[in-house]
Amino acid sequence: MDEFRLIEAIRRVVRGPGDPRVQIGIGDDAAVLAVRSGQIVATTDALVEGVHFRWDLCRPTDVGWKAAAVNLSDIAAMGARPLALLAAIEVPATLPDRDVVAAMRGLARAGAAHGASVVGGNVSAGPVFAMTVTALGEPVDGRVLRRAGARPGDVVLAGGFLGSGALGLDLLGTHPDWLRRFPTLARSYRRPAPQVDLGLRLATLGEVHALIDVSDGLVADLGHVLAASGVGALLDTARIPIHPEALRYARMSGQDALAAALSGGDDYRLLAVAGPSSVPLCESLGMTAIGAITARRGLAVLSGGKRVAVAGAGGWRHR
Amino acid sequence: MDEFRLIEAIRRVVRGPGDPRVQIGIGDDAAVLAVRSGQIVATTDALVEGVHFRWDLCRPTDVGWKAAAVNLSDIAAMGARPLALLAAIEVPATLPDRDVVAAMRGLARAGAAHGASVVGGNVSAGPVFAMTVTALGEPVDGRVLRRAGARPGDVVLAGGFLGSGALGLDLLGTHPDWLRRFPTLARSYRRPAPQVDLGLRLATLGEVHALIDVSDGLVADLGHVLAASGVGALLDTARIPIHPEALRYARMSGQDALAAALSGGDDYRLLAVAGPSSVPLCESLGMTAIGAITARRGLAVLSGGKRVAVAGAGGWRHR
Repeated sequence: MDEFRLIEAIRRVVRGPGDPRVQIGIGDDAAVLAVRSGQIVATTDALVEGVHFRWDLCRPTDVGWKAAAVNLSDIAAMGARPLALLAAIEVPATLPDRDVVAAMRGLARAGAAHGASVVGGNVSAGPVFAMTVTALGEPVDGRVLRRAGARPGDVVLAGGFLGSGALGLDLLGTHPDWLRRFPTLARSYRRPAPQVDLGLRLATLGEVHALIDVSDGLVADLGHVLAASGVGALLDTARIPIHPEALRYARMSGQDALAAALSGGDDYRLLAVAGPSSVPLCESLGMTAIGAITARRGLAVLSGGKRVAVAGAGGWRHR
Repeated sequence: MDEFRLIEAIRRVVRGPGDPRVQIGIGDDAAVLAVRSGQIVATTDALVEGVHFRWDLCRPTDVGWKAAAVNLSDIAAMGARPLALLAAIEVPATLPDRDVVAAMRGLARAGAAHGASVVGGNVSAGPVFAMTVTALGEPVDGRVLRRAGARPGDVVLAGGFLGSGALGLDLLGTHPDWLRRFPTLARSYRRPAPQVDLGLRLATLGEVHALIDVSDGLVADLGHVLAASGVGALLDTARIPIHPEALRYARMSGQDALAAALSGGDDYRLLAVAGPSSVPLCESLGMTAIGAITARRGLAVLSGGKRVAVAGAGGWRHR
């Protein structure tokens, strides 16, 4: 397939059912979108072959899905509603065009599942496959949730199970023969589901003071909230939600599920800091209280009532 | 320098004087921008080492400048006003951090020169240096100029000299010792100036029917306008503006300046199609009438009154 045919094939798979907010989509010099709220939320992130994914561990549709999901998770972490995606891809000459098209299909599906149309992109040659996605969103009712805002006495809440992404990667890389026994772990790594609806609900609660998504690991990302807010936190490891599959996989493989939950990456669960009065509502939305904000700076982690050192406090970094 | 120091150094060089439209800039999960017009214009494009640039031909600041400029040129080609840039970069381990920081400085300067702040980005490892930029803009008075809209009898106008980008690349690659004699050519390739002000003026003229920027070559990009509009065109090569340096360089090097103007790339001049009544005003803005739109489809090129074949009618493509 030549370049023009590849671009035409990509256009076909990313074409959605039509969104009235998309006034001009793919095919002109730039896209034009209606922004009713008067504000736009924008973020960009890349998946690079050999750095963020390996072809032997992920299907092409998974790579595209994840490239969209990691960006939509950042939109969710502002409490905003997704609007559109743009995707610039770098394609090595050796990669079959069908894999490129499949990756773009996965991207479009992840976007469609969360209300974002693919409105633009670029195809370039490159030494490895890379997808750089920009996600655009809109705040609801003019409110966004930032990293800064956590106050002493607030509660730290996790939006779902932690550690599944890192253990999913370990599973795929070292025990691929166990794949059918741990489908949730594999899916957590390959096709994370950004918590867009949860972020939108949290943005409407007055008592949610800070929000971030866990992409580099709980310790690292909570650290960003603490630094931006000028506070500290006390985490109770006994309260950190870990998926039963993760616990079982850790036992069988000799991995440490708690370490994965604290310092693993690729979870894309939201992490909120809220006033105590809103905890019941947050819990009704599926969140779990895992610690408290303290006036004393720094992060303390308690395990069995004792303070423990956190391995890899910098989180889990690709670069 | 480690990753955090590199990101901090980048933040320092991209920090602008402060734009009231930027409500949340770099440092949170996503940027938040005020969009007063109710519409956002968005585009993304990448510069990849070894594909779009070579380190021996460009300084790091040039690479960053150009990564911004090619995107700002797409915003200009919609007749829109630049608002913000996001830049996702891939950095090989062998590239000195000072070069990365210099590239980001060049990006920020090109943005600042055209009213766009750097509001977000991402740093990743990668096998070669790559900068994927997303540019956001806003239409003025609700009007954008598309590729479709050219009508028979309209006039084709070029926003400036053509062919300088391709000849500038040839100069840098094959005659670097001549660099001081052809500073405009070198600059056209290394630091193209997107025609943002011209695009904004054209958007306010009712009689401009179509607009695009010349990135793949005049023939290829005019071809996009013709295809989108369902018309043809007749170009008169004698009217195509070619810079005196380009003519002189072509004579000395044995290159064909007209071929570079027709099929070379990297010019980033606007190409407008307008009703005859607005030609004097377009000319007063520095544009040059180079041909006419015809009802008969296809592109005819006249040279000395004779129809000529156009070499590389597909334009000049990187991938």
